[in-house]
Amino acid sequence: MNYPSRLIEDAVGEISRLPGIGKKTALRLALHLLKREEQQSRSLAEAIVNMRTKTTYCIKCHNIADHELCNICSNPKRDASIICVVVDTRDVLAIEATSQFKGLYHVLGGIISPLEGIGPSDLNIDSLVSRVEQKDETDQVEEVILALSPTMEGDTTAFYLQKKLKSSGVKVSTIARGVPIGGDLEYADEITLGRSIVSRVAYD
Amino acid sequence: MNYPSRLIEDAVGEISRLPGIGKKTALRLALHLLKREEQQSRSLAEAIVNMRTKTTYCIKCHNIADHELCNICSNPKRDASIICVVVDTRDVLAIEATSQFKGLYHVLGGIISPLEGIGPSDLNIDSLVSRVEQKDETDQVEEVILALSPTMEGDTTAFYLQKKLKSSGVKVSTIARGVPIGGDLEYADEITLGRSIVSRVAYD
Repeated sequence: MNYPSRLIEDAVGEISRLPGIGKKTALRLALHLLKREEQQSRSLAEAIVNMRTKTTYCIKCHNIADHELCNICSNPKRDASIICVVVDTRDVLAIEATSQFKGLYHVLGGIISPLEGIGPSDLNIDSLVSRVEQKDETDQVEEVILALSPTMEGDTTAFYLQKKLKSSGVKVSTIARGVPIGGDLEYADEITLGRSIVSRVAYD
Repeated sequence: MNYPSRLIEDAVGEISRLPGIGKKTALRLALHLLKREEQQSRSLAEAIVNMRTKTTYCIKCHNIADHELCNICSNPKRDASIICVVVDTRDVLAIEATSQFKGLYHVLGGIISPLEGIGPSDLNIDSLVSRVEQKDETDQVEEVILALSPTMEGDTTAFYLQKKLKSSGVKVSTIARGVPIGGDLEYADEITLGRSIVSRVAYD
């Protein structure tokens, strides 16, 4: 497209590098900012740079944190004997929102994907193994829950982690796969439906 | 949501002030930037601030411009006798992309909308009237094409502009309304279909 100014072209170019934002949307956002107070653009730019340059990660679980330990790892009320392994911060937020998990997390920072050139060494796997294998009295890990997406990459990562954690002797589990609550049986795909029968749960 | 860090919360807050971007999308974009090089966030922030603080507008048509006059107004090959009135820069880009218009533009900068408190005095209407009424030999305007959306606000603005321009004696026209090319008659709404019959075009 033939942009009316180099400044607009630069801004559209940078904004459209974000995932899911094309040139048209980027132009809409740029023109929106042009109509608003200058302060809004400055605050946006400042928040982005601050976030990128000052964000630190929890030394224990690798979640984003304001301090050395994140709010969850530093909370004495959390159950340190269960670790839930997730891909990124969004998964932590999603599970926290359910209020069903009181243990700690371990953020892998990605998922094993040979196609994208991401191998086990690019992820926070060694530190997970150390956490699980450490034998001091206070932080004895008893169970590791793998909360990964049921995709090929997720299954590959889960398989790799199971092998890595086997020697430690801790229980390794995965979140349940099944028909979503509120979902209609008719519309569930065959694999999900099949798995939900195999993993059926007995009434108490 | 309970964000893991104040920096993330600030960034999500600022990003989600953009139109069409909610908190979830903002978080996705923020986490994306965190995974990329620091330079990408800096370039994005810089491009936004540069655009907002340094963008200038054409003194003639009010389109975004790098110089005093925009590329279109300063192009001697454009036909200065026809002015196409549009709401914003996106409309200029859309019409330019058709290669069907060789005249000049006039960017209103908005549309009359009593609900949003936007009246004629908030738009670049006086300067349009001056452009049309000026009687020097070189830039004699012969026709004004109103290219506004067929909404209530667009029709209100078109009606207001017609009245304002009547005394000047120039021809005022509007872009054609009708069934879109490639569109199926069956799916055209009644008003569009009705208008396409009233405004039918005779074969040569």
